[in-house]
Amino acid sequence: MSKPAADFILGIDIGGTNTVFGLVNEAGKIHNKGHLPTEHFLKPEDLIKSILDVLQSWKKQGLINTMPQLAGIGAPNAGMPDSIIDNPPNLKWKGKIPFGKLFTEITGINCVLTNDANASALGELHYGSRRKIKNFVYVTLGTGLGCGIVMNGELVTGINGFAGELGHTIIMQHGRMCGCGRRGCLEQYCSANGLVKSYLEILKNSGSEIYQNVINDPPDAEGICSRALAGDEAAFYSFKYTGELLGLALANSVAYTSPEAVFLAGGLSDSGELLMAPLIQSFERNLFHPYKSTVKLMRASFDAKESAILGAAALAKKELIIV
Amino acid sequence: MSKPAADFILGIDIGGTNTVFGLVNEAGKIHNKGHLPTEHFLKPEDLIKSILDVLQSWKKQGLINTMPQLAGIGAPNAGMPDSIIDNPPNLKWKGKIPFGKLFTEITGINCVLTNDANASALGELHYGSRRKIKNFVYVTLGTGLGCGIVMNGELVTGINGFAGELGHTIIMQHGRMCGCGRRGCLEQYCSANGLVKSYLEILKNSGSEIYQNVINDPPDAEGICSRALAGDEAAFYSFKYTGELLGLALANSVAYTSPEAVFLAGGLSDSGELLMAPLIQSFERNLFHPYKSTVKLMRASFDAKESAILGAAALAKKELIIV
Repeated sequence: MSKPAADFILGIDIGGTNTVFGLVNEAGKIHNKGHLPTEHFLKPEDLIKSILDVLQSWKKQGLINTMPQLAGIGAPNAGMPDSIIDNPPNLKWKGKIPFGKLFTEITGINCVLTNDANASALGELHYGSRRKIKNFVYVTLGTGLGCGIVMNGELVTGINGFAGELGHTIIMQHGRMCGCGRRGCLEQYCSANGLVKSYLEILKNSGSEIYQNVINDPPDAEGICSRALAGDEAAFYSFKYTGELLGLALANSVAYTSPEAVFLAGGLSDSGELLMAPLIQSFERNLFHPYKSTVKLMRASFDAKESAILGAAALAKKELIIV
Repeated sequence: MSKPAADFILGIDIGGTNTVFGLVNEAGKIHNKGHLPTEHFLKPEDLIKSILDVLQSWKKQGLINTMPQLAGIGAPNAGMPDSIIDNPPNLKWKGKIPFGKLFTEITGINCVLTNDANASALGELHYGSRRKIKNFVYVTLGTGLGCGIVMNGELVTGINGFAGELGHTIIMQHGRMCGCGRRGCLEQYCSANGLVKSYLEILKNSGSEIYQNVINDPPDAEGICSRALAGDEAAFYSFKYTGELLGLALANSVAYTSPEAVFLAGGLSDSGELLMAPLIQSFERNLFHPYKSTVKLMRASFDAKESAILGAAALAKKELIIV
């Protein structure tokens, strides 16, 4: 097995359930992948120490020659200018966490932080299979809905690093309560959690007896997918509802930056035709005519977490290596 | 009176009702303004010939020393790459009009075309009173709703010149029919025409006897403003409805590019507190928390048409002068 040299960059994706990381080489290949259960670490320092332990064990085992010197980190609610994770709703850690500072203090590795969806978008930009596309909207459908926007080959960050928060645009006035304190945000409808809520709502409103069976222990998105494939109409319709709303939201998103592509990634995007059929139909129907011939809706090149590892490493290379 | 030299650039704003133009100097002052009634010209060639007539009359009268050599033109549905006006819903001319080519053939003046709202946004960027702001969303509330987005001091054009079409994002599924062939576009609600439709709807739904009096000859936006100030509750509520929807739409628009400001211009934005009170309240209430401290909603520096003349001229200077 090849041994990553010192110029390999550590890419890390911190998710609500799992943290995944790997050493990324110049060509965008990930060597020595690792993963840790984020939710088991009560303090961010403990997660960082465990990542360091894994790296050191790789070195002891001879899997790497030297420790990495640079790291890029994608995390929910992470801002680039000050490397802080700010009140992440899907993590146990609360408040403004100076994650970048803690990481460098504990590991000695210089690092840069960005929002997890932005990191995934950067992975697509730098290492995706359609790298000639330099203008796109990248959407991850996971527990929530993340988004990164790329224009002219650059990530759109806005003046505070929080551009592209498509998941927190309000699509339903007086709609479902969101973790951000407002109602009707897109991610309350178009995400794995949103799908579960829609399924329960549809069951309840239809007076189905299944409702009483599932209300105390509802299936997750994968479970609803299995149910839909097995003929559960409410499950089927909850995918249709999700796809139609998402198609409209993505068609609207095109009106801002007039991109060449909208890329989809994340677990829910693996649901096949159940989601994609209503989604593509709604996207095409709701697209403003000047965009019809220029924009394509398609699957991203990588799994969202792999893309985030790649993109975070690419960001570290760009931001931290002084040429 | 000072005489514009050859380096004055002609700025033109083509609107559904009027076409206004002027010679813009280096400092962004407009000399020798002219205006023509767009809707009286059955062919674009006739409008262009009349603009040329006005310029020649200025020269004969000694108001200018030489004819301008460059022109920037803002027009509805105009795209920059090919200088075409594409099926403008608010103009009488139909189809794809090669306006830039016609203009240069008839006048001998080299020109560049852009969308009217983009031109206004460029006027704000280059000559506005808050020129240190380089990241903003610019919205014109006229007959329709136009929008231009500026990022890092550059107009966002997207890959086909049609970025920033906020007026054609769908905010109401199965909503009001739009000239673009779809239903529920923002400009069907938040524009002078949208306000009139809301007023009539509110009157009709409330069973008011005013409805029968106005249905055949409805007041325009200014008329509804006067009625609201005179105590017409339906008129007052139609402004409230418009402001609330617009506040939500503008708060959502912030999530894409995380700008420093949202600028408002156009006739309807002159309606004072009737519109601004519900608009600002809704904008603040619907804003995602990371943007609350960074973005401001404010009036633009100039009237939208003046801003378009200035911005079109600035674009011509940028695109046509080879340094």
